[in-house]
Amino acid sequence: MDEKIEVKESVYERNDRISKETKEFLKSRGVLAVNVLGAPGAGKTSLIESVIKRAGIRSYVVEGDIESDIDVKKLGEQGIEAVQINTHGACHLDAPVVKKALSEIEFSEPGILFVENIGNLICPAELTIGEHAVMLVLTVTEGSDKPYKYPLAFQKADVIVLNKTDLLAYVEFDERYFLEGVRTLNPDAPVFRVSAKTGAGVGDVVEWLKERKKNTI
Amino acid sequence: MDEKIEVKESVYERNDRISKETKEFLKSRGVLAVNVLGAPGAGKTSLIESVIKRAGIRSYVVEGDIESDIDVKKLGEQGIEAVQINTHGACHLDAPVVKKALSEIEFSEPGILFVENIGNLICPAELTIGEHAVMLVLTVTEGSDKPYKYPLAFQKADVIVLNKTDLLAYVEFDERYFLEGVRTLNPDAPVFRVSAKTGAGVGDVVEWLKERKKNTI
Repeated sequence: MDEKIEVKESVYERNDRISKETKEFLKSRGVLAVNVLGAPGAGKTSLIESVIKRAGIRSYVVEGDIESDIDVKKLGEQGIEAVQINTHGACHLDAPVVKKALSEIEFSEPGILFVENIGNLICPAELTIGEHAVMLVLTVTEGSDKPYKYPLAFQKADVIVLNKTDLLAYVEFDERYFLEGVRTLNPDAPVFRVSAKTGAGVGDVVEWLKERKKNTI
Repeated sequence: MDEKIEVKESVYERNDRISKETKEFLKSRGVLAVNVLGAPGAGKTSLIESVIKRAGIRSYVVEGDIESDIDVKKLGEQGIEAVQINTHGACHLDAPVVKKALSEIEFSEPGILFVENIGNLICPAELTIGEHAVMLVLTVTEGSDKPYKYPLAFQKADVIVLNKTDLLAYVEFDERYFLEGVRTLNPDAPVFRVSAKTGAGVGDVVEWLKERKKNTI
């Protein structure tokens, strides 16, 4: 039993060590790393695309998916280069796998790195991957009960983006109930109402990222 | 190393054994067990509610969530009794935890048992929990690329429900691309277009379940 516990701890310890190294490396290059979490179909890729187009700042992207390179191609069509990680079953990214992906990127200028984690509100919240900030993406179509059902992701978030607000008129979304749930878990993270599709509210996310970069890097 | 592998195998072996026992027990009671998978906010609970209201058949429900009893309360308001499982972090249900929950239910009549798994398209696809059928719930708001990104869940499904079709006019959903992805992974499972909100298409799911019950139990 002792041996098993030791092995498990050392996996987490190794992850934390590599995560810390990644953070420091990226900081030395003037790059803010953002770990983007959200359920399948939350619009993480569309949000990243929308933010990059408005930010006017050098951006780098790593796309995490179990299979496929759909999101890298989607970003490529918009002139945004991205590196794909396929986990082939693993339900979250970890620091070693992100570090390996980052070795393919030449961080030639200061800027922002977006790491889109696997579409999953549970497991990705448990591990750091070298980020300076966690961005949690929700949608109004998912329903307003998500903070109550997936508390850890909300606790870990530095910024919360409520996406697909263009669909608010067609769904039942109790924003007060949602925000009450968020505030119980996380009193400080700002919550931005956004439509990555129309661009509404995306400017607020950009401003927050720039401020965070200024204060962190 | 050998010992560790043995331990891991025996966890899966134990799960399979208990899953098989649950299947046989429920069959002996004339109960078809359905393992309901889907992302957070796919509308699993609303679909279960809508199916039960239309089916006119004795139904039993187990609700899996990391935290909260929101869905049990939601069903209770509609006169549908349900047993809550809270996994407190675990990203999927397993056969032992479902077996324990089932001990709280008196299966006094033949019918259908719905086990709503944790909102997650990845990990729940890896373990059986005593089901006779896997129902996978997707939504048109999640986007049409899900089969390509989460293949295992689609491979394991016996029936696929495409929910929230009432929102089709307001989102970009490429149904042909979606169905091509589904068919590559799973040539046989029927795909039903449904709105749990309006009730459209729910009758087809009910018919499929009744047919499945007749052929299985």
